[in-house]
Amino acid sequence: MPDEDGHPSPEEMSLPAVLNALSDPLRYAVVSELLGEPAGAERTCASFDLPVSKSTTTHHFRILREAGLVRQVDRGNSRAATLRRADLDLRFPGLLDLIAADRRTRA
Amino acid sequence: MPDEDGHPSPEEMSLPAVLNALSDPLRYAVVSELLGEPAGAERTCASFDLPVSKSTTTHHFRILREAGLVRQVDRGNSRAATLRRADLDLRFPGLLDLIAADRRTRA
Repeated sequence: MPDEDGHPSPEEMSLPAVLNALSDPLRYAVVSELLGEPAGAERTCASFDLPVSKSTTTHHFRILREAGLVRQVDRGNSRAATLRRADLDLRFPGLLDLIAADRRTRA
Repeated sequence: MPDEDGHPSPEEMSLPAVLNALSDPLRYAVVSELLGEPAGAERTCASFDLPVSKSTTTHHFRILREAGLVRQVDRGNSRAATLRRADLDLRFPGLLDLIAADRRTRA
């Protein structure tokens, strides 16, 4: 079972759910941006400055979290997200590499 | 430019478009099923027996075709689809392997 914050374990992650999470341009951009950070870097959700309301931002991060792409932790009055690189590389080898390669071609 | 039937060249394929094409359960199932066929195998669109109307089936195959996942050819009064394995393996190494691995865990 996912933990109390809705984070699935690597075994619980589903490829269709991960692909669905990545199919939205804003969510894809969040993952791509996190790949540009040092491994383990924490970013507040607000720092992504998505062009949508706060509640829609929260929705997008919930989809990312429940698919297993990001881990969210409470940091006082905001939440921070980290990319679950090691878990994702273990469960879906090569997936993040494809997004990182795509990121480089757009840079 | 994509060819006259809307097939992009490998260089024209976009990872977000491919992920979006795979984010629908029926389209994901089509790709997964094609991965279970011998390489180069042709399947008519009707043979997938998707639980949707013919026009919706046509729509789903258009999304798959325009993303570069399948190649469609006219076969008399129906259209057949093949998975563009070599092109996809070249452009997005490892992506089809993830879907094939997911297919094996569900078998």
